[in-house]
Amino acid sequence: MDRPNFEPSIGASAGYDYDMIVIGSGPAGQRAAVQAAKLRKRVAIIDRREVVGGVCVNTGTIPSKSFKEAVLYLTGFRQRHIYGAGYQVKADISMADLTLRCNKIMQLEVEVIKNQLNRNKVDTIYGHASFIDPHTVEISSSKGALRKTADKFVIAVGAAPYRPPNIAFDSQRIFDSDDVLGLTKLPREIVVVGGGVIGTEYGSMFAALGVNVTIVDQRKRLLGFVDEEIIENFSFQMRDMDVRLRLGEEVASCATREDNQVVTTLKSGKIIVSDCVLYSAGRVSATATLGLENVGIAIDGRGKLNVNDNFQTSQPHIYAAGDVIGFPALASTSARQGRLAACHAFGVIEEIMEVPLPYGIYAIPEISLVGANEEELTEKGVPYETGIARYREIARGKLLGDENGMLKLLFHRETLEILGVHIIGEYATELIHIGQAVIALKGGLTYLRDAVFNYPTLAECYKVAALDGFNKIRA
Amino acid sequence: MDRPNFEPSIGASAGYDYDMIVIGSGPAGQRAAVQAAKLRKRVAIIDRREVVGGVCVNTGTIPSKSFKEAVLYLTGFRQRHIYGAGYQVKADISMADLTLRCNKIMQLEVEVIKNQLNRNKVDTIYGHASFIDPHTVEISSSKGALRKTADKFVIAVGAAPYRPPNIAFDSQRIFDSDDVLGLTKLPREIVVVGGGVIGTEYGSMFAALGVNVTIVDQRKRLLGFVDEEIIENFSFQMRDMDVRLRLGEEVASCATREDNQVVTTLKSGKIIVSDCVLYSAGRVSATATLGLENVGIAIDGRGKLNVNDNFQTSQPHIYAAGDVIGFPALASTSARQGRLAACHAFGVIEEIMEVPLPYGIYAIPEISLVGANEEELTEKGVPYETGIARYREIARGKLLGDENGMLKLLFHRETLEILGVHIIGEYATELIHIGQAVIALKGGLTYLRDAVFNYPTLAECYKVAALDGFNKIRA
Repeated sequence: MDRPNFEPSIGASAGYDYDMIVIGSGPAGQRAAVQAAKLRKRVAIIDRREVVGGVCVNTGTIPSKSFKEAVLYLTGFRQRHIYGAGYQVKADISMADLTLRCNKIMQLEVEVIKNQLNRNKVDTIYGHASFIDPHTVEISSSKGALRKTADKFVIAVGAAPYRPPNIAFDSQRIFDSDDVLGLTKLPREIVVVGGGVIGTEYGSMFAALGVNVTIVDQRKRLLGFVDEEIIENFSFQMRDMDVRLRLGEEVASCATREDNQVVTTLKSGKIIVSDCVLYSAGRVSATATLGLENVGIAIDGRGKLNVNDNFQTSQPHIYAAGDVIGFPALASTSARQGRLAACHAFGVIEEIMEVPLPYGIYAIPEISLVGANEEELTEKGVPYETGIARYREIARGKLLGDENGMLKLLFHRETLEILGVHIIGEYATELIHIGQAVIALKGGLTYLRDAVFNYPTLAECYKVAALDGFNKIRA
Repeated sequence: MDRPNFEPSIGASAGYDYDMIVIGSGPAGQRAAVQAAKLRKRVAIIDRREVVGGVCVNTGTIPSKSFKEAVLYLTGFRQRHIYGAGYQVKADISMADLTLRCNKIMQLEVEVIKNQLNRNKVDTIYGHASFIDPHTVEISSSKGALRKTADKFVIAVGAAPYRPPNIAFDSQRIFDSDDVLGLTKLPREIVVVGGGVIGTEYGSMFAALGVNVTIVDQRKRLLGFVDEEIIENFSFQMRDMDVRLRLGEEVASCATREDNQVVTTLKSGKIIVSDCVLYSAGRVSATATLGLENVGIAIDGRGKLNVNDNFQTSQPHIYAAGDVIGFPALASTSARQGRLAACHAFGVIEEIMEVPLPYGIYAIPEISLVGANEEELTEKGVPYETGIARYREIARGKLLGDENGMLKLLFHRETLEILGVHIIGEYATELIHIGQAVIALKGGLTYLRDAVFNYPTLAECYKVAALDGFNKIRA
């Protein structure tokens, strides 16, 4: 058992209004505040919106995932090859249809977070926070300004889409990912600038809706951190949905014409005319107006804060966690960072098991990965082999109608240790956690061969891939 | 590495036509045949249908699962609370709509199996097999009869629905589970006799389609082997779909009236009038005409064969695997038994890792479990505690619209070892495999607390349940 051993410290920082003030109520801020409260600290959480949850709940993760569910259901995307287009739920899908569930789910999530903060007696203060000195923030809102002091701080203000200064954003013709669900109607053609996670997620969703999509990225391939074979498969599937990929191309200009069409000119001279452009060229940490200059904390060009392994900034009592510190900037990792920051701030050393992080891309199809990829292993000279299973080989894959899904295991050909798992296809983001457990708990290829899986499930891909792997290393 | 170490033995049993004859081509038979072939044996597989795959592909597992997928999609079952009934894919769903995908998927599966058998050079013989003596079977079909000899045999003939002799089955009004997908139209009311796996699966599917369903079982609760809390939840959800549960009740008679309605009379005197009755009162092993009397192998009242731990019958060279030997009678376990039988027959000892078996019930909602349940642990005096997560608490549960889903961990309160996982809700049959790996590889509650899961996924239920568990044991 490794539960923390700590003394309640009420009064320890009695000179301050709070033991800890958390700025931002996304996943990192929430977990930091709740963790501190569980350590019986007096905690306040500040959010500049009139609502908790941050980008995750309000404009980012949750809205885009509910949009995706709506796209899959309303288009009958996976069912088309079985039932034909005649069975589509709605012939003429509107933005209103697609966002119906988003609003409902966002409200539910906000309620859950509010309840959790209340239950843990965390004070919630709405307003814009700015440091006055190392232990004081001023919180200003339409209702005026107030000052609060604390012994410790966690900056978890998140990030916002980066808007290049030479592009005239108008939220309807040229917009960023925060604006997508505010569109009043579905475009016929869209240009997506940026082939990272957000660009490919929305690009693939619009493509599934039958919108003409062009993705432009200056890099040579989509999703740089993903295994090459998986990206090839993904690119194939995107092109199969008539997505045009313009890779290795840079945008020279992007402007709205008199007839309201947007003209995107690439540096290579190509011109793309579309109804609208989604600009998804990275994110910038929301640190500009935090008054960090008053506490001597530096930020980089995109507003990012640097922290040490304990999530401390250059001011040891001021922590930062979540998107504001950059990669991987996932809700799951941000929550963990927030929790660890709060633990460290109050001297609680939690022994945390080292578990490899999964990454999930909620595109159509989904992509998920854990552990190393082939490029990395080759570079390190690890003698790995692969084991592959295709969804179409297993019964559940056929039931789901996912023809192109696949799971790839990378394993050490001598020790049989699993080194990485890479999945593309339905439920990839769920399925990855079996591989994650086997990597973390050292089950190896033998575990995946010998375990009996429910039939029919996608989990059987692990067994099929393990058998394929054993076949490959047979002398 | 624990690969088998064996000598190729071609010619070792040269006096026979084959080294091994496998009777039945369902999951157990297929795996036995393929395993023997991989050991470079001469193998034949016999099936009395003109098609491979057995009940699993042709009337059982695969058809019922594709029926279920069709029900969920065409009724928009999980989406109703979000979109309202207006978004149902088809207003008037017919049996033809529901079985469209079944036929397609069955054909695909049969092709896969055929290819696998061909690739491994297994001879396929269609016809009815019957033992003449311990090393000879006669195979008769419309084309005549032939005899084949073999050194070893695997009986994998499966099981068929049990038809009580006093019930007048007619395949349209009073029928068994093999007949369900042959119905020409969807009933308005159906009585399901038997609250086991098959009865609850079909009962819940018909209920989701809006059919009035009554389930009758002489036992006091559905699905006797499932955790009580999960069954309570399931029963609640069934009743919420207007299913009538008549538990602890026995059928006295069941007959079709002149107006084609079926009258089911219970021993308690209750009478239920319905369009049709699905009889699902257990299964009987398909051994009656195998000529087992000619080789001195006994069967029990329901045709079941007894085998030892190596899957040998009382004739050591004749093995049996799959449904024909009874519980658990799942495709997944049958495949494993077939493989192990073939290995043993040819003296190959595969060291197989001990991994707890998952059980999956593909009802609406799904149920899945691995490891022990509360009753068992209480009986053994194990000091366990529970950790619970409800789908509605986590983001992905809300996205899926599954309000009542839940995951329950049972863990040892001192060692923190995970003892059992019980899930009800969407994707339960997939989700269970994370818990299976953690149990088998001894990750414990700490692993589930410390692992970072993709957000939003149902896998997060494990983390939420682990945190709930830690809270409960906090002194």
